[in-house]
Amino acid sequence: MTDPTRSTTPAPPAGARTDAVRRHDPAARGFASDNYAGVHPEVLAALALANGGHQVAYGGDDYTAHLQEVFRRHFGPTAEVFPVFNGTGANVTALQAVTERWGAVICAESAHINVDECGAPERVGGLKLLTVPTADGKLTPELIDRQAYGFDDEHRAQPQVVSITQTTELGTCYTPEEIKAVCDHAHQLGMAVHLDGARLSNAAASLGVPLARFTTEAGVDILSFGGTKNGLLLGECVVVLSPERVRALPHLRKLSMQLASKMRFVSVQFEALLAGDLWLRSAEHANAMARRLDAAVRGIDGVRVMRPVQSNAVFAMLPRHVSERLQKRYRFYFWDESTGEVRWMCAFDTTEDDVDGFAAAVAEEMAAGA
Amino acid sequence: MTDPTRSTTPAPPAGARTDAVRRHDPAARGFASDNYAGVHPEVLAALALANGGHQVAYGGDDYTAHLQEVFRRHFGPTAEVFPVFNGTGANVTALQAVTERWGAVICAESAHINVDECGAPERVGGLKLLTVPTADGKLTPELIDRQAYGFDDEHRAQPQVVSITQTTELGTCYTPEEIKAVCDHAHQLGMAVHLDGARLSNAAASLGVPLARFTTEAGVDILSFGGTKNGLLLGECVVVLSPERVRALPHLRKLSMQLASKMRFVSVQFEALLAGDLWLRSAEHANAMARRLDAAVRGIDGVRVMRPVQSNAVFAMLPRHVSERLQKRYRFYFWDESTGEVRWMCAFDTTEDDVDGFAAAVAEEMAAGA
Amino acid sequence: MTDPTRSTTPAPPAGARTDAVRRHDPAARGFASDNYAGVHPEVLAALALANGGHQVAYGGDDYTAHLQEVFRRHFGPTAEVFPVFNGTGANVTALQAVTERWGAVICAESAHINVDECGAPERVGGLKLLTVPTADGKLTPELIDRQAYGFDDEHRAQPQVVSITQTTELGTCYTPEEIKAVCDHAHQLGMAVHLDGARLSNAAASLGVPLARFTTEAGVDILSFGGTKNGLLLGECVVVLSPERVRALPHLRKLSMQLASKMRFVSVQFEALLAGDLWLRSAEHANAMARRLDAAVRGIDGVRVMRPVQSNAVFAMLPRHVSERLQKRYRFYFWDESTGEVRWMCAFDTTEDDVDGFAAAVAEEMAAGA
Amino acid sequence: MTDPTRSTTPAPPAGARTDAVRRHDPAARGFASDNYAGVHPEVLAALALANGGHQVAYGGDDYTAHLQEVFRRHFGPTAEVFPVFNGTGANVTALQAVTERWGAVICAESAHINVDECGAPERVGGLKLLTVPTADGKLTPELIDRQAYGFDDEHRAQPQVVSITQTTELGTCYTPEEIKAVCDHAHQLGMAVHLDGARLSNAAASLGVPLARFTTEAGVDILSFGGTKNGLLLGECVVVLSPERVRALPHLRKLSMQLASKMRFVSVQFEALLAGDLWLRSAEHANAMARRLDAAVRGIDGVRVMRPVQSNAVFAMLPRHVSERLQKRYRFYFWDESTGEVRWMCAFDTTEDDVDGFAAAVAEEMAAGA
Repeated sequence: MTDPTRSTTPAPPAGARTDAVRRHDPAARGFASDNYAGVHPEVLAALALANGGHQVAYGGDDYTAHLQEVFRRHFGPTAEVFPVFNGTGANVTALQAVTERWGAVICAESAHINVDECGAPERVGGLKLLTVPTADGKLTPELIDRQAYGFDDEHRAQPQVVSITQTTELGTCYTPEEIKAVCDHAHQLGMAVHLDGARLSNAAASLGVPLARFTTEAGVDILSFGGTKNGLLLGECVVVLSPERVRALPHLRKLSMQLASKMRFVSVQFEALLAGDLWLRSAEHANAMARRLDAAVRGIDGVRVMRPVQSNAVFAMLPRHVSERLQKRYRFYFWDESTGEVRWMCAFDTTEDDVDGFAAAVAEEMAAGA
Repeated sequence: MTDPTRSTTPAPPAGARTDAVRRHDPAARGFASDNYAGVHPEVLAALALANGGHQVAYGGDDYTAHLQEVFRRHFGPTAEVFPVFNGTGANVTALQAVTERWGAVICAESAHINVDECGAPERVGGLKLLTVPTADGKLTPELIDRQAYGFDDEHRAQPQVVSITQTTELGTCYTPEEIKAVCDHAHQLGMAVHLDGARLSNAAASLGVPLARFTTEAGVDILSFGGTKNGLLLGECVVVLSPERVRALPHLRKLSMQLASKMRFVSVQFEALLAGDLWLRSAEHANAMARRLDAAVRGIDGVRVMRPVQSNAVFAMLPRHVSERLQKRYRFYFWDESTGEVRWMCAFDTTEDDVDGFAAAVAEEMAAGA
Repeated sequence: MTDPTRSTTPAPPAGARTDAVRRHDPAARGFASDNYAGVHPEVLAALALANGGHQVAYGGDDYTAHLQEVFRRHFGPTAEVFPVFNGTGANVTALQAVTERWGAVICAESAHINVDECGAPERVGGLKLLTVPTADGKLTPELIDRQAYGFDDEHRAQPQVVSITQTTELGTCYTPEEIKAVCDHAHQLGMAVHLDGARLSNAAASLGVPLARFTTEAGVDILSFGGTKNGLLLGECVVVLSPERVRALPHLRKLSMQLASKMRFVSVQFEALLAGDLWLRSAEHANAMARRLDAAVRGIDGVRVMRPVQSNAVFAMLPRHVSERLQKRYRFYFWDESTGEVRWMCAFDTTEDDVDGFAAAVAEEMAAGA
Repeated sequence: MTDPTRSTTPAPPAGARTDAVRRHDPAARGFASDNYAGVHPEVLAALALANGGHQVAYGGDDYTAHLQEVFRRHFGPTAEVFPVFNGTGANVTALQAVTERWGAVICAESAHINVDECGAPERVGGLKLLTVPTADGKLTPELIDRQAYGFDDEHRAQPQVVSITQTTELGTCYTPEEIKAVCDHAHQLGMAVHLDGARLSNAAASLGVPLARFTTEAGVDILSFGGTKNGLLLGECVVVLSPERVRALPHLRKLSMQLASKMRFVSVQFEALLAGDLWLRSAEHANAMARRLDAAVRGIDGVRVMRPVQSNAVFAMLPRHVSERLQKRYRFYFWDESTGEVRWMCAFDTTEDDVDGFAAAVAEEMAAGA
């Protein structure tokens, strides 16, 4: 007779047995996106380390508590960090914290929040985006002024926050001075500044300065700090730099469906990234690989690099049929279907051999011609 | 002279080195929530297995592709699976797929969507919840009828979906027949049925039947399948059982900010859970631990188990000061602050010793008296 | 040859010619709703008076400017008035002004915002309603406490405002002391108080006190003041009594699509209503007619008046088939289809003969029997 | 002793007595907006005619029933009309009827829905606007293509409707052929077409064709028909031309807070406008006054008319300080603060003397110089 109060199954094994099966080639890499890369081994190791036993859910755990300290080391003593799931979630949660119900967001036309979030800012946050065309993905006080008017006109959604992306969606990087100019201008007009930092580490690596230099010290009020594109399994953080904006965050994160129950596993990844120099090592490496690719393809006749390579992306123009042949050998995307411009991204795990092999393939396909 | 096109940092180490530090006692466990538990070792192993190399982001990877097959084995050939981040995200994404802009959701007053999601259904989905008080967390055709009226009255938010939770927030479990009765009734009235299955595995374990028996075969249209509470690091799935609802899902998941870029790491966890019997082993074990706890505390004078133990939760009433003393030794929550009812949850990693130790502590504190 | 710069049509005639045709019997009246009544002649006269010439649109006109003064005479020197189109618009605009994005509204289950606004509070305002069943449509501190908990629990939509209706949807009327008790309790808990005053004039008439007695003086923060049900063509006002809530209103009214361009014609109706005693005359009359009807039908065997008649509504129970026969002679609604309870509303234009004729009809149909 | 069941106030007087007071000069007119004008006397007469007695609320009245017929005479037998309060309400209600939750709206950057509705499309409808800069406020297939891409890319809000304004916000007028080209192109791409017709009557007057010619016959799916700017007290209509879009309207109108209780008074105004030729007389007159003004100021040195005068607006450039002096004599707006362009609007009640007087004032102020 079985006793229903005893477990009929053995305790879970401690070992690495799993019913899942490897289904991919762990050596295959392309230039499509830093999101195509996997998890940095140091991050994976951190997950194991945080496992076992019970920890308070929804951010009451010891890893999330410690994360405040980790972020303050980088962003200064006023920083408060709120881990979330993904970049869209981080952006929309943060933007709601710095707008009233009638608020609008001034951003570049090319901003991720405008083009790649399926309207989540509008639908989840009820936000109106006031977009400005830019040459290089960067806003300036002058460009901001193209939308920063109509304050107190009830017919107009009120500009209450400027959102910039660092590094930009076009691979360019604001200098600390440029960000400070944006912040000063926004603040003078009574607006806050949000920074979408999906690739913030790449910016610090590119500029060779600490993270605070072009965020806290430049006057940014709130930012989205990206982890996934820099080697995490999954995870972004909303970092609040203006203390008066903090109160809203727990509520906004929850209602934006961005509150992780087992948050320790998001937080410990950020600890692995930021407690030491992994964030910088990985970003510097990815940037260096992009520079290497830039240098390699510039020498190829018929290939034109379209934008300054200031992070881990190379934007290039080459004949469309060449790109299409090349895509059969390496994954990458057309950036602009109408012009044929392509984007090649490097990641923390891109190797010099990957770059050299890819550049050789570009040269071959160009030579193979029309 | 440095060459900026060469990476100045060595390739990341293959080993398990990390700058993160263990901050908790991996042997400490309580009875607060199945969310307090960590990751099942077999799931952690699956993460490592899916790592390395590049895989298409946003669900274009080989693990997510295979997941369709895995879920169809459990839910039948019409099932389509969409991995998301968390339970609120799964519920709100799913509910939007089965409602029009003017739709309303009939649910139990105790439903998670009503009490524990900070209004995300209302705010993100624009959904009106029409709630019904229940004795045990379960809806019936009769209870549904208390809100299922006013069809085509433009003044009333239109009831378009019934949402049930299995197992319920009160630890009770619908029989397949009860769910079929709910579905038949809802369908007769032109409504769809959503099932919040944050603990669906516990229900199957409790009922001793396959998952399809009380979902697909009972007539459920769409469900949220929970992974996190059953040993995943993080991950839930929207499972669409009515093919005509599928088209909306990719868009709704994205705009609801639930689209993971490195989705392979969510999908492979579900493969580890569902390809073999891990889901069932873990759920059966957690349920058995709850039954063991139920049996152990029923014998203690002054402790009253309040609800049938049909999954991994025990709801009990004991003197409030006894509970408060007990909370200093083991973590758990008051379920109802006003009555003093407490909830004790078991997880996949709860051991028989944990249960016996806790039951002994309950007895001790009861004996210590007022 | 025609000169295109000269108008080929004569200036519009000053007279009363129109291509519209009278399509209804201006002598036919029923007991269905005070919304079925038309426009009080004094109000219609006011429209003509405000006509002619150009006036600044969107509330910059002389009538709206003067309306501030009119409302302050009734509601005290802190009152600020914002005319809107309809009751749902007034309620949802007002509630947004006293809630944050994560706020919730405690209200009676029978509240108009809960049952008759097609989810506009949820969909337009992103508001979560926390409902409480009541015997008579009235909230009390004790009933409020059934939902006023979980402050600062991020999982729970935060109770930030209590919404009451005066007179209630069930025809009952709060005393000034009862409203004060609600306000004191709400304020102690950090919540604001909104009053849905679709029939506020009927309440003042019923209580025999000035409007401020049970609003401003009782502690109400913001209210919806109804005009349409008391003889206007169309128009409600949001009246803000707590000065710190005012700033949001112009923006919220506009984004809630409640900003009238030719606002002078809404404002002048309120002037006609409130500058003298029209509001009170009309409300007293409607209330008196309801009392007359109450008295008349109480004497009829088999007719039961279900609720205290404290405004212009009579709720009664009589055999369903009798009601259905009666509906062929006079328009009125079933209030509760499940019980057969009916609602009979009186309006500013209901006559004593209307009431006596209707009561006689009730008696006849009751006598005609089963 | 008073009898509480008798009304203590006399029945309302039939006469024109009112406590409201005339506060403005009914002879003063400017060139600020057609919204500054009042109510056409024929419309005011219609209000009186629809008054008296009880009529079913919320659109169940005889005037609204008849309105279907009136609109079908103009827009063809498939038209269904839904009266609403204002233009923003009409637009947002209509756009929701032709989009799914993930839909986006392609419109001109200068569209009213983009610049003058305080984000109501985004906030109330959850709509993403995809804007295109235009020279003259008019979209073309080529301009639409600048945003009509990314179909089925879940990262992009899905273009599901093209919204055009007739006449445009810049006073220009699409030809029937131009609208047909827009509709054909949109339909080929699977998108619907919405037309914001706040000044649709002016377009018909300008083109000299029936309303159906450039709406129903051109392929428009749904439109907002403006009444307020053409002499109504208040009122717009959503006109559905594609029958499959009708089902949503009653619900969307209610939840968008645009359902008038005493709808007969909105409907009868439209009957007064459209049953005969008042709509056309008024629009032709306003257009003729604009042409007269155009002709008069073109002769003034230093005044430049900036856009073709195809409806009732004249856009002009003159020295800013001249405009500012002129504004002290006549009300009008700067259209573009940055360039100094001004907008002069004519209305149904603008007289030839008004125009001549204003043109003389322009000439005087120009002559007075810097």
